[in-house]
Amino acid sequence: MTPRFPGYVAKIQESFDNQALMKTFGAEISEITPGAVTLRAPIQTHTTQQHGFAHAGLTFALGDSAAGYAALSLMEEKAEVLTVEMKINLLAPASGDLLIASGSVLKSGKRLVIVRAEVFSQKDGMNIHAASLQGTMIPVMP
Amino acid sequence: MTPRFPGYVAKIQESFDNQALMKTFGAEISEITPGAVTLRAPIQTHTTQQHGFAHAGLTFALGDSAAGYAALSLMEEKAEVLTVEMKINLLAPASGDLLIASGSVLKSGKRLVIVRAEVFSQKDGMNIHAASLQGTMIPVMP
Amino acid sequence: MTPRFPGYVAKIQESFDNQALMKTFGAEISEITPGAVTLRAPIQTHTTQQHGFAHAGLTFALGDSAAGYAALSLMEEKAEVLTVEMKINLLAPASGDLLIASGSVLKSGKRLVIVRAEVFSQKDGMNIHAASLQGTMIPVMP
Amino acid sequence: MTPRFPGYVAKIQESFDNQALMKTFGAEISEITPGAVTLRAPIQTHTTQQHGFAHAGLTFALGDSAAGYAALSLMEEKAEVLTVEMKINLLAPASGDLLIASGSVLKSGKRLVIVRAEVFSQKDGMNIHAASLQGTMIPVMP
Repeated sequence: MTPRFPGYVAKIQESFDNQALMKTFGAEISEITPGAVTLRAPIQTHTTQQHGFAHAGLTFALGDSAAGYAALSLMEEKAEVLTVEMKINLLAPASGDLLIASGSVLKSGKRLVIVRAEVFSQKDGMNIHAASLQGTMIPVMP
Repeated sequence: MTPRFPGYVAKIQESFDNQALMKTFGAEISEITPGAVTLRAPIQTHTTQQHGFAHAGLTFALGDSAAGYAALSLMEEKAEVLTVEMKINLLAPASGDLLIASGSVLKSGKRLVIVRAEVFSQKDGMNIHAASLQGTMIPVMP
Repeated sequence: MTPRFPGYVAKIQESFDNQALMKTFGAEISEITPGAVTLRAPIQTHTTQQHGFAHAGLTFALGDSAAGYAALSLMEEKAEVLTVEMKINLLAPASGDLLIASGSVLKSGKRLVIVRAEVFSQKDGMNIHAASLQGTMIPVMP
Repeated sequence: MTPRFPGYVAKIQESFDNQALMKTFGAEISEITPGAVTLRAPIQTHTTQQHGFAHAGLTFALGDSAAGYAALSLMEEKAEVLTVEMKINLLAPASGDLLIASGSVLKSGKRLVIVRAEVFSQKDGMNIHAASLQGTMIPVMP
């Protein structure tokens, strides 16, 4: 996939740094390529649900952000990205130390970008497939 | 709708109090009735996205939790609740001071509970419809 | 909700008449109001699944079409409508003689229209809530 | 992935043959392997929408059936399969002569099976990615 704006890596990093919730989650960017972005975040005591697993809200937020930045990596310079809709299927409880979310672009259209994300939790060095997301992103002009 | 366990209010409150992420979000329960639960959370500087609106992850987490507790209100005493899948359509940027999420049960089956949630943001005393969620909850025995 | 094109009723009827699949299903329009359209179709021996209930494909097609025409009722004269994405939760097996699908608009934006549909099956004069759909429609110019 | 019932191929073919709607669509099974099933159907004049493309209802029905049979291929002998919920993102208008739907299993649990399907339309020998589906199947005992 071909990025419309060559400076997409710095643009994504800057946008990510302005997401306060990502800081609250201790999340960071692992990798950015055209049409694919990977994020990671520790599973911390302040982001769990009632059974001590990563809260679905954390899993969703990380997957949604990875997918959104995957879409943004293909958009033009001025464009920012908003989630139109997103669906998550939770495959396994997200236990362990770390969440890893890989977002990718299924179809990059002019008006809409269709995306997916896979979220894995890491426990004792093993990856568990925790969630699959599929949704729609839209470019917005400031 | 008829609750299977008369102590559902205290059970939901206890479960909610054990969700660390809900504390991180400053969320609290507004109302619990059989098949319907309303939550609220302030939009704080540490839960926004890059444009200063409530992060979709916050909107999702609140809607998903409201829907999950709506399902739990109808389940039997020992049952806990997990999200199978959830879809969110974002209708408007969630600006303002407060998010309010109302979850309700569409269909309470033995094996699965189908739910919805509406999330509103409150700005200058006005409610804006920010998101609609539809999904599936499953009872789990400890 | 206010239609942008006063001739929306005739426009929807004409579009519906051109949908060959709706004819194959024996479907017809029951009601059109601004932002809400109801369709109905008999459950016939050639539209069932392996257990004799209405096939999920029929339930989906009817719900999706009702939602799409609800969106179209608010669009401008030249616009046609396409489904961006649609999610269906199946609540009960669709048994009986008839399916009734009511589509409605949750949010009518310039670029996208967010919709819902409820599908009921009718058996011995009783309505059974068979499915709930939530999705996104987009206006397209010819 | 390991099938629980060795006779899954004949079982799927028999179930498929009992789906009247699949006959109405002229659909047939192309391939069955453990956890993956491919279906195909011609795009016929009686299954189009108002612009002459395959109706989203046809695309959905084929993708949903492919995903359902992928799930069934891993279930035990007596089990039948029902769709709990399914989400479809439409990527491109399904033009051409033929639809091909490949369903696969993301996670095969005891209580639920999470699935995906990709639908392609074939035009002049070229495949166009028309739709991506993600959903949940449930085993039911007769």
